[in-house]
Amino acid sequence: MALPQAETPDTDALPILVREDIDGVATLTLNRPKQRNALSRALMAELQRELAAIAADRTVKVVVLAAAGPAFCAGHDLKEVRENEGEPFFKALFDQCSDLMMAINRLPQIVIAKVHAMATAAGCQLVAACDLAVAADTAKFATPGVNIGLFCSTPMVAISRNVGRKKMMEMLVTGEPLDAATAEAAGLLNKVVPAEDLDSAVDALAAKITSKSPLTLTIGKEAFYRQLELPMDEAYAYASAVMTRNMLAHDAREGIDAFIEKRAPVWKGE
Amino acid sequence: MALPQAETPDTDALPILVREDIDGVATLTLNRPKQRNALSRALMAELQRELAAIAADRTVKVVVLAAAGPAFCAGHDLKEVRENEGEPFFKALFDQCSDLMMAINRLPQIVIAKVHAMATAAGCQLVAACDLAVAADTAKFATPGVNIGLFCSTPMVAISRNVGRKKMMEMLVTGEPLDAATAEAAGLLNKVVPAEDLDSAVDALAAKITSKSPLTLTIGKEAFYRQLELPMDEAYAYASAVMTRNMLAHDAREGIDAFIEKRAPVWKGE
Amino acid sequence: MALPQAETPDTDALPILVREDIDGVATLTLNRPKQRNALSRALMAELQRELAAIAADRTVKVVVLAAAGPAFCAGHDLKEVRENEGEPFFKALFDQCSDLMMAINRLPQIVIAKVHAMATAAGCQLVAACDLAVAADTAKFATPGVNIGLFCSTPMVAISRNVGRKKMMEMLVTGEPLDAATAEAAGLLNKVVPAEDLDSAVDALAAKITSKSPLTLTIGKEAFYRQLELPMDEAYAYASAVMTRNMLAHDAREGIDAFIEKRAPVWKGE
Repeated sequence: MALPQAETPDTDALPILVREDIDGVATLTLNRPKQRNALSRALMAELQRELAAIAADRTVKVVVLAAAGPAFCAGHDLKEVRENEGEPFFKALFDQCSDLMMAINRLPQIVIAKVHAMATAAGCQLVAACDLAVAADTAKFATPGVNIGLFCSTPMVAISRNVGRKKMMEMLVTGEPLDAATAEAAGLLNKVVPAEDLDSAVDALAAKITSKSPLTLTIGKEAFYRQLELPMDEAYAYASAVMTRNMLAHDAREGIDAFIEKRAPVWKGE
Repeated sequence: MALPQAETPDTDALPILVREDIDGVATLTLNRPKQRNALSRALMAELQRELAAIAADRTVKVVVLAAAGPAFCAGHDLKEVRENEGEPFFKALFDQCSDLMMAINRLPQIVIAKVHAMATAAGCQLVAACDLAVAADTAKFATPGVNIGLFCSTPMVAISRNVGRKKMMEMLVTGEPLDAATAEAAGLLNKVVPAEDLDSAVDALAAKITSKSPLTLTIGKEAFYRQLELPMDEAYAYASAVMTRNMLAHDAREGIDAFIEKRAPVWKGE
Repeated sequence: MALPQAETPDTDALPILVREDIDGVATLTLNRPKQRNALSRALMAELQRELAAIAADRTVKVVVLAAAGPAFCAGHDLKEVRENEGEPFFKALFDQCSDLMMAINRLPQIVIAKVHAMATAAGCQLVAACDLAVAADTAKFATPGVNIGLFCSTPMVAISRNVGRKKMMEMLVTGEPLDAATAEAAGLLNKVVPAEDLDSAVDALAAKITSKSPLTLTIGKEAFYRQLELPMDEAYAYASAVMTRNMLAHDAREGIDAFIEKRAPVWKGE
């Protein structure tokens, strides 16, 4: 994390979201450290804007979602929430948040959450919404909305698709955090590493993925989430059509030829 | 467990279901110890009656489902089953059992299974149907219907929504029990404790939940189970509407104000 | 494994699929060891033919799916894939593979995968498609299609119904294998044993299942997969009807009578 830590003032002069691209990996860093990266409307809009730009950017093969400061993300910005009133405002707020999460789900690129610290409520949902998640052993995960009378109803949509019912219900009704090892065992994380190894673990995972055909990854990611929501026979019919389309692409023929000829493939992304 | 243990005779003079309310926690104790708390039609009817009463009782915030005697629950009452005949009887019996399980699912309050011993067939289903489950390390869990030629088809509806396919299928086709630690790892339980700590573990969990807004818990529990059955985009649209409704309630505004003002919230349940 | 190992030539003179029936257990052994048991159209057709025969064979109560040679199954036969062209060929190929997997799912008998070595792509899918899976600690599991530009889209239909989203996505986008212990923890396997114990572990599991009523197993297996795809209330209505039908069969009445009378049941399979 080369980014400003907690002591840095959060003023209009500093961007609330920082994007840095290296070797096909776009890292988006939440940068409201003093507000524990709470998802204000402005920060969500920035995330949506960057994700839309990345979706159309063929130089980006992997996205890493990271955060600066003492927390990963504290969820909604409660001060902003209480400064506003009325059903239309709240509906627009929660819809915007859901749109953001679905944008991660629908992004053509693979998204890795890089979690160094506490992720709560919609912040925990962000981790669940990513395709992959790597955490430091200093990270924690909670859905504490129940403590403020506001059940984590939208966060649970994403988290309950990673974590079993009993464990999820316990998180929701007690509001208590899981440590990183428990979150990994529960299915929310791919890997937990010592805090000092988080950068290298995420870099290594991202590098594995950038070596693949971006077309293949895009076809596969879309198909993965779609087939999960179908009955098995329909899922097979759908996936069989997807594989046929995939097989007719240059990169599959090149990949198989390279495999048979025992050489490295050259991807064209088409 | 202040209740009669196995040596107690099970006569008409003793209630087959005991309800005790303390500090917002209603404990329902299955009390047919000599029949290993088998779910006779009478016992299921008692459970349904108490659950209906609790659903309308705003003084109850958490329900604990416990059992007296050497077993937690042995499932259907096989003697009663064999004393009857014909499709209408069996259909009514299995429908009643399913209605009972759905009543737990639909109850406005959070339900905790407190499992001190063997839970089999519909008894194991009871554990799965509860929102949360805490077990003693002396508990075991099985779906042994296959041993008597009657596959645990209704029990698996609840259990397979907690436990993965391979493990569930193994339970179903071998009929062999899981010990408590294995059941916890499989997703059926929230926690396993030494038998002597079961009372305090359940009390502590229940107390955490009774400290929350009952309105928030009711909104959240209903939404949790409903969103699980929707495709993700529909689940988000639904959950976003639920959170908006939740946000407009007194308890959410009070909770957020209390959080910002660093004081304890005062719930009104509205 | 009494079958020819890797050094055996794979010629037309040897069957590519070997069936051996002992004590109600039909073992189907993939026997293209030099091709790492790749699923050529011919091998898939043989599997489909044997499964269709077994479906109608009341002497078979359990099927074991095993493999000869240094690999369990390498997935599709890439040489055959590349020797052919055009959408109709690929569509027919992937549809055939999906039909094969659904045939395992729909088989009246319980199917156990016996995995001694690497299972990749459609080979890993085979393991997931079986009702139960026992592996040697020498086995590994991967969906490496991404490495050849062909995302494992049909394999993930089966595997993602055993393994959680984050772990599955990692397998899919990195292509890296899980060792047997990790695959078990992820939900893909029932049990991992030392390689020298694989035969006896599978034999013991199969023997437990052959001791049950085949009618009960068939009713239950079909109901298991069907209820998983229904909302909970519909699943209960369906399962309740299934149990009623099951209860009216001879084997259930006999099983309950035997249980009450403390004697061994005598199954008629009806």
